[in-house]
Amino acid sequence: MTPPPPEPGPTGFTQRKRVFFHHCDPAGIVFYPQYLLLINEVLQDWFETGLDVGYAGLFADRRIGIPTVRLECDFLAPSRLGDALEITLTVERIGKSSFELRYECAGSPGQDVRARIRAVLVTTSLDGHGPIPIPQDIRTAMERYT
Amino acid sequence: MTPPPPEPGPTGFTQRKRVFFHHCDPAGIVFYPQYLLLINEVLQDWFETGLDVGYAGLFADRRIGIPTVRLECDFLAPSRLGDALEITLTVERIGKSSFELRYECAGSPGQDVRARIRAVLVTTSLDGHGPIPIPQDIRTAMERYT
Amino acid sequence: MTPPPPEPGPTGFTQRKRVFFHHCDPAGIVFYPQYLLLINEVLQDWFETGLDVGYAGLFADRRIGIPTVRLECDFLAPSRLGDALEITLTVERIGKSSFELRYECAGSPGQDVRARIRAVLVTTSLDGHGPIPIPQDIRTAMERYT
Amino acid sequence: MTPPPPEPGPTGFTQRKRVFFHHCDPAGIVFYPQYLLLINEVLQDWFETGLDVGYAGLFADRRIGIPTVRLECDFLAPSRLGDALEITLTVERIGKSSFELRYECAGSPGQDVRARIRAVLVTTSLDGHGPIPIPQDIRTAMERYT
Repeated sequence: MTPPPPEPGPTGFTQRKRVFFHHCDPAGIVFYPQYLLLINEVLQDWFETGLDVGYAGLFADRRIGIPTVRLECDFLAPSRLGDALEITLTVERIGKSSFELRYECAGSPGQDVRARIRAVLVTTSLDGHGPIPIPQDIRTAMERYT
Repeated sequence: MTPPPPEPGPTGFTQRKRVFFHHCDPAGIVFYPQYLLLINEVLQDWFETGLDVGYAGLFADRRIGIPTVRLECDFLAPSRLGDALEITLTVERIGKSSFELRYECAGSPGQDVRARIRAVLVTTSLDGHGPIPIPQDIRTAMERYT
Repeated sequence: MTPPPPEPGPTGFTQRKRVFFHHCDPAGIVFYPQYLLLINEVLQDWFETGLDVGYAGLFADRRIGIPTVRLECDFLAPSRLGDALEITLTVERIGKSSFELRYECAGSPGQDVRARIRAVLVTTSLDGHGPIPIPQDIRTAMERYT
Repeated sequence: MTPPPPEPGPTGFTQRKRVFFHHCDPAGIVFYPQYLLLINEVLQDWFETGLDVGYAGLFADRRIGIPTVRLECDFLAPSRLGDALEITLTVERIGKSSFELRYECAGSPGQDVRARIRAVLVTTSLDGHGPIPIPQDIRTAMERYT
């Protein structure tokens, strides 16, 4: 008897966000650094609910930081006040002490892509700021997204 | 035959918010100006879903501003990274061209009050920045919250 | 022989600030929470150069926090992108473990007042978040501003 | 008689910045999106004093936007609360309706590089959000930096 095929992993972690007043610039559109705050909100929720790894405890208890060391962004179309956005995080690569995430930020539902962002993060010790290997629980949880 | 008593209006407009990384300061707690961004998010959603008045259209189409002219805040207890917050907006007073809102920001569910904020806002013309009477549709919608 | 009159203390600590793009909202004017970031910049520089008390060391080394517990703001006139602002901090009151500061934020040079802010801050232990008496070096330095 | 050689153009536009409390995260270091606010402050001042092109008037009067469409950042070392930073803007390329800037952000004076950022900006019409050729006065002023 053949075993059932492995369940396909999740292809990404998607969250809806709203464009709030404080995201917008004098031109009435999202000022690009605000996208980076929004994707960090998605990252935080991904840790909490996607990876089931406590995000706050990461810093406070485990003294682990996850600074972004490399960032590439393409801002393709403007987002306007009140727009609903759908941000999807996918895992591109998991290394020894770094990992690469991609974010696609699109109008919702099913509208044009506003931003594509590639971020490389490193796990570090907050007590020394140097890199440390990705802790095993985080690595295992992340691998379900690859 | 006596008419039915008037239906009680809503006593407030409540939304849940999460404390994200970018809200927090080096002491690991919400830096107080961030509460003011959070209550403005609640204000925006209140316009959209509580008052059924388009918030983005207010600025872009109707050229109406609603600047805050007076603010009183008591910050009573710290909020920490990852905390769930429940923010409740209530209408305190509706004047000719100004209105007063109160926000209570508490840990969720049912925890201690972190901040109490009283804000006076004025309806203005964006083409002159001077005050204008509160438009009738907004006034009528707001009155349901008093 | 009469002694010389006491030297008048400084009446305030004034700094110039510029209204940057990221301070401005879709109406093209400073979004009011941004004033609170600006006055906190002035507070930091006042500690450093006005009080000669290391601000960063306060948190990192001395484990002292200075959270704002009460805030009253009047926003009197809009500030626009590129405006030069002059922010003056004065000390209103020094208590046992709290002190009250006032900020006046005006267009520069010599223009209209945009915001008046009264803030009550408390010295706390970052290891317990409870209030502590204002450390003597800070108190002595602050008293020169009263 | 040979004419004097052309004067070398400026090699970059440098400004000092301070790391303020609101730039810092719970790990006590600058949260990376804050660097993008800081370089935008440098951009604004470069327009005003480096290029002698009114930055506020660009949006309000001339209805020209300069959105960032592509961004590459390397965050090399942490910056801490109170650090002095030196940010240098250089012009990498001037195209028809886009231009590429580089920013190097280092500790000051003469310390390690904290961030290197490459940004591609496009001149657009704020009345249509589509690209427009770089206005001649801006192009001419920018060319002095190449």
